[in-house]
Amino acid sequence: MTKEWKPDRLSEQPIYKQIVQYFEEQIRNGELPPLSKLPSERMLAEDLGVNRSTVATAYAELSASGLIISKRGSGTLVGEVNQDYSSGRLPNWNRMLIAGTLLPNVPIIQRIAEETHHKNLIDLATGQLSPELFPNEQFQHLLKNQHFDHPLSYDHPHGNMKLRETIAGHLKTYKKIDCTPSSILITSGAQQALHLIIQCLLKPGDAIAIENPSYTYSLPIFKSLGIKTILLDADENGVNPQAIHDAYMKHRIRMIFLGSAYQNPTGAVLHSERRKKTLSTAYEFGIPIVEDDPYSLLSFENESAATLKSEDSHGIVIYISSLSKMVSSGMRIGWILAPKQIIERLADARQQIDFGSSIFSDWLAREFLKSDFFDPHLHQLKIELKERRDILVSAIEKHLPGLVDYTVPKGGIHLWCRIKPAHHDEKLFNQSVDKGMIYTPGSALGSNKGFVRFTFGRAAKQSIDTAIAAFSEALLLQK
Amino acid sequence: MTKEWKPDRLSEQPIYKQIVQYFEEQIRNGELPPLSKLPSERMLAEDLGVNRSTVATAYAELSASGLIISKRGSGTLVGEVNQDYSSGRLPNWNRMLIAGTLLPNVPIIQRIAEETHHKNLIDLATGQLSPELFPNEQFQHLLKNQHFDHPLSYDHPHGNMKLRETIAGHLKTYKKIDCTPSSILITSGAQQALHLIIQCLLKPGDAIAIENPSYTYSLPIFKSLGIKTILLDADENGVNPQAIHDAYMKHRIRMIFLGSAYQNPTGAVLHSERRKKTLSTAYEFGIPIVEDDPYSLLSFENESAATLKSEDSHGIVIYISSLSKMVSSGMRIGWILAPKQIIERLADARQQIDFGSSIFSDWLAREFLKSDFFDPHLHQLKIELKERRDILVSAIEKHLPGLVDYTVPKGGIHLWCRIKPAHHDEKLFNQSVDKGMIYTPGSALGSNKGFVRFTFGRAAKQSIDTAIAAFSEALLLQK
Repeated sequence: MTKEWKPDRLSEQPIYKQIVQYFEEQIRNGELPPLSKLPSERMLAEDLGVNRSTVATAYAELSASGLIISKRGSGTLVGEVNQDYSSGRLPNWNRMLIAGTLLPNVPIIQRIAEETHHKNLIDLATGQLSPELFPNEQFQHLLKNQHFDHPLSYDHPHGNMKLRETIAGHLKTYKKIDCTPSSILITSGAQQALHLIIQCLLKPGDAIAIENPSYTYSLPIFKSLGIKTILLDADENGVNPQAIHDAYMKHRIRMIFLGSAYQNPTGAVLHSERRKKTLSTAYEFGIPIVEDDPYSLLSFENESAATLKSEDSHGIVIYISSLSKMVSSGMRIGWILAPKQIIERLADARQQIDFGSSIFSDWLAREFLKSDFFDPHLHQLKIELKERRDILVSAIEKHLPGLVDYTVPKGGIHLWCRIKPAHHDEKLFNQSVDKGMIYTPGSALGSNKGFVRFTFGRAAKQSIDTAIAAFSEALLLQK
Repeated sequence: MTKEWKPDRLSEQPIYKQIVQYFEEQIRNGELPPLSKLPSERMLAEDLGVNRSTVATAYAELSASGLIISKRGSGTLVGEVNQDYSSGRLPNWNRMLIAGTLLPNVPIIQRIAEETHHKNLIDLATGQLSPELFPNEQFQHLLKNQHFDHPLSYDHPHGNMKLRETIAGHLKTYKKIDCTPSSILITSGAQQALHLIIQCLLKPGDAIAIENPSYTYSLPIFKSLGIKTILLDADENGVNPQAIHDAYMKHRIRMIFLGSAYQNPTGAVLHSERRKKTLSTAYEFGIPIVEDDPYSLLSFENESAATLKSEDSHGIVIYISSLSKMVSSGMRIGWILAPKQIIERLADARQQIDFGSSIFSDWLAREFLKSDFFDPHLHQLKIELKERRDILVSAIEKHLPGLVDYTVPKGGIHLWCRIKPAHHDEKLFNQSVDKGMIYTPGSALGSNKGFVRFTFGRAAKQSIDTAIAAFSEALLLQK
């Protein structure tokens, strides 16, 4: 994460004075309106990498000039001096912050974002790749050597046509999925693809089904729109098709959201018998399946895992994939494959929401996918991820012998663990953070207490063992 | 617009046969499910640039094999042959298409998108710049000569820090607006900025105010979320502050959305007395103003127009701007400037929705803004736009003498006209399209009947006169 403002250590001006000016400026500009909250001294000192006493000096000076006030219980707030309220009043920002239709991220997801942003923790929590696993040099090569000759205006509402042709070819070659470019919509990652489907095809009161556990559980969009989520039983072989049957009978579910191979968080691959049964059950009731496939090419075995879409003879699967876990998360390229009329509806919505993809990302995604870089990169990435998985498994065996249950994932970036000793989920999480590592608690993903997700794709290879050692220390404290 | 699939004229296979295969493939893949609608013969012939008889031959062959059926009244549909429904049924896609929370674009906006996409019309309708007005060569230069060394992973949730610093500098230099980078959120254009604000800070039942007429009138997001829009009287000097007063008294409006200088569609600049009064009225009632400023730098006079934000001493303005109408619409770079706590809330929502900007667009936007290219480009763009405005005004005087009322805009890309002769809005629109030109009817922007928006930034310079001549012919037919 890029950090925010830092004091300039080479400046002649004392650091505390720089901090004073930084806040003075924001208070004067209205960026910090009266009564808005300043970070605690401890937090700010950590963020800026300065002594807490330096921050205390700065706050004391701001306080002396009346710009900020310390209130017992509510921390440090911007003061109201120099404000003449006789002619009016400020908007009630605090009321607006909690008014919106789109609910904020759930607290644990916000907390993980904050902790990984502010502290130097070993990150087994966030579901992304370590920067060195991405093809950085290859992109620099493409940027220097490929000619960009696309107009700078808006592109097609479905995304760049040439990119969609390239993706259709990619799906055919790597996933045995047949489609034509007009059934593809380019999206800002799989995240936006999910949001478009949920906002455009479901209505308040609808019930949908997701696996338990599942990444989608953490998305506030369902609750924001009044959509009921039914949890489907799943195990190391993926979702149980009988659960789909039961959910339809009981709740008339309108849509099923399933993670494809190496599911997030369990790492499970849907067993081939279950895959058939899942498709036939959904077809029996006419329920579309939304298949989210970020990882199926990241197999540690000889073959890639099959997708539901490649066996979808009735056309009931809406298929989502992206480059975020393979090529670059920051380029924001994902796609949806669906019946043409559905694609038209989603493209209309995307026009409304943000007017489509970045022409530069579309261009670079295509250049990379059709380049000779893709295959060797994918090959190397799988070797690297497999090595990290092995390091994680060794670390677990070494530091947590007999203390956890898990299935070794055969691809992807996540490992799912049940913690056997009695413990308090939240305390375990807090103490792990104190020990310098962070993971995603299972409860954030819909599971019962006692589970954790360790992501092995994100942290530096050499720090994985240290992270699990720290976790085991935190677990010991629970006794 | 990039077009979709076209038959290959160099192929040995007859064109009608290629069309047959194109549809066979999509029907087989489930992209065109049973009962989905095919384009009319006329429409498809236009799109593909082939004779209508060629399409008729292709449809006849598809029909003979039972793949498609022609139904009187519903056109050409995909057939249901070879589908064995004994074991299940298809999802009810048609029901889903109309289920969503996010409503589709209004019909006239969809129609304009389709007409400009499918037909070769002179486009005075869409609010964007002609591709040759963008700095194409300068971007090619930056791509070749600037080194991209950013990691390919996600960037900061607020958008790239260096880009935000550059934008803070830009706002200071060009618009006399003071801010720090931590109060800026990069968005996928102004469009996404508006959507984030509406989704996060307003709740169903809230009333908000927009100018009449206004571009925001065409956004389905307000209706989608159950937000009531109150129209504020405006004229050639912008919004009437008394209307804000009245709207608050009557409807307790929670927010005011105003276009900044050279407003879309009227081209109006808010008069300086009114600007003061607008700010003080909003402050009197504690109502935040959302100021959308895509055009203020596109002035045809010596000075840029002032913004509300630059005079906002109480910090009640949430300010939106973008590069879409100045540098590139396809790069999708806009930004919001707001109190820090509001920015945090919006950034959290953006994480949920699409996980942030494209790192490539952020990088290029910064490189361009801090390059020596920006000033000369802006200078040249204003000259070009002013020339187009003058051509449009001359064309109106020549082809519509005494038939319209309008104020000559002093910047931006839009000219707003009242059509004086009695006419039927929809017929005039249809006949203008038949004559080869398209514009935006005022009713799409909230105004009473009888108004039209001519955008002079989009069409080729030499075609503007032809467009107005065609419009005048269409108007003559109304008698």
